[in-house]
Amino acid sequence: MVRTLEYPKKPQNTVKRYNRTYDLGAIHSIINTTSVLHVSFAPSADDPFPAILPMIGVMGSYEYPSSGIDEPLDCYLHGYVSSRIMRVARESEKGLALCVAATKVDGIVLSLTPNSHSYNYRSAVLQGYAKPVEKDDEKVYAMQLITNKVVSGRWDNTRVPPDNVEMTSTTILKVKIETGSGKIRQGEPHDEAKDLNRDEVTERVWTGVVPVYEALEAPVPNATNKVKEVPAYLESHVSQTNNGNREAALNAVKEP
Amino acid sequence: MVRTLEYPKKPQNTVKRYNRTYDLGAIHSIINTTSVLHVSFAPSADDPFPAILPMIGVMGSYEYPSSGIDEPLDCYLHGYVSSRIMRVARESEKGLALCVAATKVDGIVLSLTPNSHSYNYRSAVLQGYAKPVEKDDEKVYAMQLITNKVVSGRWDNTRVPPDNVEMTSTTILKVKIETGSGKIRQGEPHDEAKDLNRDEVTERVWTGVVPVYEALEAPVPNATNKVKEVPAYLESHVSQTNNGNREAALNAVKEP
Repeated sequence: MVRTLEYPKKPQNTVKRYNRTYDLGAIHSIINTTSVLHVSFAPSADDPFPAILPMIGVMGSYEYPSSGIDEPLDCYLHGYVSSRIMRVARESEKGLALCVAATKVDGIVLSLTPNSHSYNYRSAVLQGYAKPVEKDDEKVYAMQLITNKVVSGRWDNTRVPPDNVEMTSTTILKVKIETGSGKIRQGEPHDEAKDLNRDEVTERVWTGVVPVYEALEAPVPNATNKVKEVPAYLESHVSQTNNGNREAALNAVKEP
Repeated sequence: MVRTLEYPKKPQNTVKRYNRTYDLGAIHSIINTTSVLHVSFAPSADDPFPAILPMIGVMGSYEYPSSGIDEPLDCYLHGYVSSRIMRVARESEKGLALCVAATKVDGIVLSLTPNSHSYNYRSAVLQGYAKPVEKDDEKVYAMQLITNKVVSGRWDNTRVPPDNVEMTSTTILKVKIETGSGKIRQGEPHDEAKDLNRDEVTERVWTGVVPVYEALEAPVPNATNKVKEVPAYLESHVSQTNNGNREAALNAVKEP
């Protein structure tokens, strides 16, 4: 029996255009393959503006570490969060209400008229309550997930475990997800008959898609680096990331 | 005389780590070269979570169109915003309080211990009040800026001007900026003596930077496209964007 888990549809995550998804697997995959997430929260009751921080994040389950990507997971976040925010997250019973967004651009979609221009993209938004991870075991679990998200296999190839100073100075936020949704735009530009039927327009305006992807260059060793060759796990992370990202951008050109 | 304009330093935009900047030119440039911006706002008083929307945006001044990138500018945003949000933005006197974030990843920074891992990046955050653009002339001004941000020179090479239906169905938000800040991380990994002095660590762990940049592939024509060759402005946008992004990633490896 195949189960597909979905986030509940609520007014605030009811996506109105393009292909919407509430599928846990699709949403978690976008979060896990996006380098930098954008995390929003209300800094204080008297500040009218929400804040946004760029953070690194990954989906995981410390309670059920063997959970698949399409099962209920928490979002672990790492990045500089002010001590004021951490205090709010720690002291409030539910945690800090926040929104996590990830967007991967797959292409520039160029139609006859600029008003139908678009991007091919995959985006995911999660909303939930964040608390700092307090247990050392869970903190190490999350650090390992985050490190291996940035470069697959990196954790085992670094100096670990973190020492006491590092454990104290590093804060990981754990977001209990309340709701989530995704948006995916794929395919060619769509023009209307009013433009497609005008030769003086179609003979002049190029239409199509420029594929876009995040590319990794060859690793550049540090002045203090003593490992002569780029290790296999790193070579393979670079080539697999490039191939996967490029393929996703090229596949997105075709109508799904 | 050289004037450098800066956004005011307020508690909410006081960046605590890395190289902070309040320089208008630096912040506006990051916004203008980031494909997708993340825009956050409070959807309603009874919703605890902020919302985040991916949008396209560009800095500009309809009142003073010849303003330079380092002068005071508004942020014009395009993207799907629910009619409810638009009503809020239109009806409230000041407009909708929102936060606009742009992040460009330039590299993965790999040190001896995962706790010092980092990204090279440039990020910018603006906060201000948004209202829908009402004047047709200003709307066309903003549409043109946004289209030429996506592909330089594209506006004049499409079917313009927008017709009445397009003018009515397209909404542009104009954000009057109250405050802004930027963060820039560049350079090599930084390790501490406690690790650098341990041969069994330095002989095993590769350290350095993997440059990262947003790459554009060769344009793929649409089935209905009748322009046989990829136009020069598009070819040159692709190559200039690739060269600029790649160069920024490689330059970021070196200590500034």
